[in-house]
Amino acid sequence: MTGTAQIGVTGLAVMGRNLARNFARNGFTVAVHNRTTARTDELVKEFGDEGAFVPARTPEEFVAALERPRRLVVMVKAGDPTDAVIKEFAPLLDEGDVVIDGGNAHFEDTRRRERELRERGIHFVGAGISGGEEGALNGPSIMPGGSTESCATLGPMLEKIAARAEDGTPCTTHIGPDGAGHFVKMVHNGIEYADMQLIAEAYDLLRAVAGYSSAQIAEVFRTWNTGRLDSYLIEITADVLAHTDEATGRPFVDIVQDRAEQKGTGRWTVQIALDLGVPVSGIAEAVFARSLSGHADLREAARGLTGPTAVPLSGPEAAAFADRVEQALYASKIVSYTQGFHQIRAGSEAYGWGIGLGAVAAVWRAGCIIRAAFLDRIRSAYDARPELLSLLSDEPFAQEIGAAQDDWRTVVAEAVRQGVPTPGFAAALSYYDGLRADRLPAALTQGQRDFFGAHTYRRTDREGSFHTLWGGDRSEVSTG
Amino acid sequence: MTGTAQIGVTGLAVMGRNLARNFARNGFTVAVHNRTTARTDELVKEFGDEGAFVPARTPEEFVAALERPRRLVVMVKAGDPTDAVIKEFAPLLDEGDVVIDGGNAHFEDTRRRERELRERGIHFVGAGISGGEEGALNGPSIMPGGSTESCATLGPMLEKIAARAEDGTPCTTHIGPDGAGHFVKMVHNGIEYADMQLIAEAYDLLRAVAGYSSAQIAEVFRTWNTGRLDSYLIEITADVLAHTDEATGRPFVDIVQDRAEQKGTGRWTVQIALDLGVPVSGIAEAVFARSLSGHADLREAARGLTGPTAVPLSGPEAAAFADRVEQALYASKIVSYTQGFHQIRAGSEAYGWGIGLGAVAAVWRAGCIIRAAFLDRIRSAYDARPELLSLLSDEPFAQEIGAAQDDWRTVVAEAVRQGVPTPGFAAALSYYDGLRADRLPAALTQGQRDFFGAHTYRRTDREGSFHTLWGGDRSEVSTG
Repeated sequence: MTGTAQIGVTGLAVMGRNLARNFARNGFTVAVHNRTTARTDELVKEFGDEGAFVPARTPEEFVAALERPRRLVVMVKAGDPTDAVIKEFAPLLDEGDVVIDGGNAHFEDTRRRERELRERGIHFVGAGISGGEEGALNGPSIMPGGSTESCATLGPMLEKIAARAEDGTPCTTHIGPDGAGHFVKMVHNGIEYADMQLIAEAYDLLRAVAGYSSAQIAEVFRTWNTGRLDSYLIEITADVLAHTDEATGRPFVDIVQDRAEQKGTGRWTVQIALDLGVPVSGIAEAVFARSLSGHADLREAARGLTGPTAVPLSGPEAAAFADRVEQALYASKIVSYTQGFHQIRAGSEAYGWGIGLGAVAAVWRAGCIIRAAFLDRIRSAYDARPELLSLLSDEPFAQEIGAAQDDWRTVVAEAVRQGVPTPGFAAALSYYDGLRADRLPAALTQGQRDFFGAHTYRRTDREGSFHTLWGGDRSEVSTG
Repeated sequence: MTGTAQIGVTGLAVMGRNLARNFARNGFTVAVHNRTTARTDELVKEFGDEGAFVPARTPEEFVAALERPRRLVVMVKAGDPTDAVIKEFAPLLDEGDVVIDGGNAHFEDTRRRERELRERGIHFVGAGISGGEEGALNGPSIMPGGSTESCATLGPMLEKIAARAEDGTPCTTHIGPDGAGHFVKMVHNGIEYADMQLIAEAYDLLRAVAGYSSAQIAEVFRTWNTGRLDSYLIEITADVLAHTDEATGRPFVDIVQDRAEQKGTGRWTVQIALDLGVPVSGIAEAVFARSLSGHADLREAARGLTGPTAVPLSGPEAAAFADRVEQALYASKIVSYTQGFHQIRAGSEAYGWGIGLGAVAAVWRAGCIIRAAFLDRIRSAYDARPELLSLLSDEPFAQEIGAAQDDWRTVVAEAVRQGVPTPGFAAALSYYDGLRADRLPAALTQGQRDFFGAHTYRRTDREGSFHTLWGGDRSEVSTG
């Protein structure tokens, strides 16, 4: 039995529903299914005129509605719900069929699922999808990982529904095998955390040190959005800051509780980076800043700790300071992306994925939360030199950050002096200064480790490893 | 068949051997076993006159040599080797016997092993042991986790071999059930990473900004070691810095490669803290600083990045700066311990361990790597107020950090200006300023999340959660 639907979507919460509509609007016949059939009916009733939907009430009906090889997109919660759906559908599928997980799965789960389904001849594609509800409907950035074969057949369909970069290129590409797509989506989210934290720090400095009102800060962000910081997050920051709370007439941002929440992907990014030995201090500080803000009890207990109260600058000084904050924000942003792309390179090497970093930057140019003009420049950098070890060694970025570093230092020093927390700006600057240091104090760390744990050390002037007999006559022995 | 040995040690690499000798020297009859019997023979031959050893050639002989209930300490590598030894010995044991894992196991593994052995009526104790080779022999800090019953019988034996605090108290106590001991040992190591990083930054500043020689810096650390920073790590730092390399006649620290290595426990601490929602930025920056230093290729590629070269201060200014560095180091150290103890409290709550934080500080006072005069003050703080949420809300610590904060800011600002990376000092200061902030920019983060993901927010003036229709008329709807 073969159906006529070119694609199916199961799981019709807002992301699934919008993705199904996006496929239908682009001319595909879409089988739709949801555990609770009311959602399926609602979709067809409300949006049935947008395209060709084939509603299915049962998994069997759903599978029967699909043309072969079947392509079904699973849009349920990450974790156990995804496994449950796969377990339910797999027995109904045939060799060559393709299951696409469009949720925010952990890439290790994706690797496991791909392996399990591959043994049954079924292709499993872990597709990172970014852009939120609105992106799912009108064009997200899509990062599929899976077999070359399945991604080749899926590719043209995904290209139809994906966002398009300014040059018209669809924002989707085959990232690599098995977990590569979800890994890249995870790092995308980690970078998103860092971006948001840096913007929050810039806002805080403009408020506390420049003494600007929310409306003024909104204007500053609007201006920044016309320059090199041009991006979705800067744009919506201006919108949020310009918004007035109707109930109180106060700036919206002032009536929102200052306790940030988070889901899992920022945390995962840092945890995996630690396993890969990649320093992602900017992302880590962003995750920590959110959890710190959420510890209301600790913050309450810390009230009254000694420290300066920021004294706002006056007019022309404030404007000059705001310009410096733009430099600090941009420089710190370069560092965040440097760290994130380092992590993707390290992941790609560890898992043998062969990810093209230029292609990743390209698919992030539109549709996703971190979309930005900036990403086209990262694409250029990697397209020109695919072997580029670090964004900081790309000449144009190195020059920009070099030109920004003086103001960046002034801003961090001022924040420190005035008691405004800037964990993201400061961590990024430490990373920059750490990387460019001729000589790090890590030599002392190695000496200490050799002292208390006989962990040995290497010398600058000779090959091999050595141990000093610290508890004895302090002579040196060669250990290999 | 019952033997006469009160305790057995299997795994006679340096830690196991020294622990066995420590037991024997304290009057216990010790059964000793090693997979390769040569090690057993060697131990008895070299150190047999230190006490009563019962060498065993096979697991059966080893088990037969122990009095009942048997107590055997496993001193093999963490991970699979530990499981292999348990699998080998468990069938030879009887109900009520006690297996002690003295390695650096991940506490989740300890929880699993405890559960599995409990089902067979065998007690499993995960004991964190700190102090390196020397501590194992002459008195380590011991952190056992397991059933109250098994830890009660073990307690007096561990008290005999443990280090003693200045007031004579043995540095061991029953930390809590199952994984509690290994969890606390893990955080101990995380704090150790942070301590070492902060010391490295202090050294770097004294070198680059104060312009001191290694010998001068050694003297500075020696002086610090007579004050509130009095600790093992400061003491050995002075020794390492004062040491001259015989081959070159240069300061030892200058001929050691500046690439720090690491094992797993610092990384684990951060990964678990992320799961628990505890900001441990100081530990994270220490782990990242080590991995950054080890990326020789990235550092090479980053050479030539623009930035200042530190210009050393002159005489009296240098001395004043060195005093400020002591303040910055001490303040940052308080933050590291605040974060570490927060993590222990959070872990204890999450796993229902009922860990006494004052008792943890007490067993760290001697024997372990982070032993310090400072820890007796932490013990006092928690003994006086066991419910203390944060070390920063302990009045004496709050006063000290308050008195230090001005110099701390000056040091970080100067480091930033001069281009010396101080990720640890800066992260600690951001944490301090973040906690004491009346209002964090996390409100903006929540606004952004609501904008792009409809994640909702809370208001400062009303209960409930809300969403603004950003894509519509921007009115607010209540969502629960």
